[in-house]
Amino acid sequence: MKTAYIEHIGIAVENLDKAIEFYTNLLGTECYKIEEVEDQKVKTAFFMVGQTKIELLASTDPEGPVGRFLSRKGEGIHHIAFAVDDIAERLVDAAASGINLIDTRPRKGADGLNIAFLHPGSTGGVLIELCEPQK
Amino acid sequence: MKTAYIEHIGIAVENLDKAIEFYTNLLGTECYKIEEVEDQKVKTAFFMVGQTKIELLASTDPEGPVGRFLSRKGEGIHHIAFAVDDIAERLVDAAASGINLIDTRPRKGADGLNIAFLHPGSTGGVLIELCEPQK
Repeated sequence: MKTAYIEHIGIAVENLDKAIEFYTNLLGTECYKIEEVEDQKVKTAFFMVGQTKIELLASTDPEGPVGRFLSRKGEGIHHIAFAVDDIAERLVDAAASGINLIDTRPRKGADGLNIAFLHPGSTGGVLIELCEPQK
Repeated sequence: MKTAYIEHIGIAVENLDKAIEFYTNLLGTECYKIEEVEDQKVKTAFFMVGQTKIELLASTDPEGPVGRFLSRKGEGIHHIAFAVDDIAERLVDAAASGINLIDTRPRKGADGLNIAFLHPGSTGGVLIELCEPQK
């Protein structure tokens, strides 16, 4: 089963407004959505670059996953998300091949996706998200 | 001027063969090229995922940029590369907007691209590459 495309790249930022301004200038395109994801303790801002979204992630809680990432590592690329056809099946395959799953079952993420994260400890240090766009 | 798409995502890895096996399984697609870039002290392996390449980067010299990244931060996402139409003009724009340039002029990178890096100290912690595919 083939991964279709890179759905988005998540970038952890300290100041969402400043980062939106930076990427608006760099990419020459406007932010098309700002969304707070309470479950993940983040406020997100999205840009479209070809097939792939740039998802800026500002923490709303220092104890949330992005808050902890920022205090440990500082600003930078947080994760990469691959669009897949059948996320539930892909999670079963990933577990069978020895990858540790952060989410054993898909859950609702930002921008209307079903998502699940793989643990960077078993992916060569990369926080990988699988996501299935809504049909 | 609009950024067309994400040309590639560079991922620093300790063991290229092991990483190729991991991404072959994860992405369900084969590595299409392995290339050594002497100038950058790396051996690279490429996968195509939709519009975007995954570029695995193994160091060939601990004093090279990826060797130093690995010893400082360990394995993980190293940089993100945006395809642009006129890289020389984009570098002038970036410098004018206060971004520190690692490369003030485009140079030859892997996979036949003209490339230049922006310094992560002025991009919110993200090592950003601009690249212009050969026409």
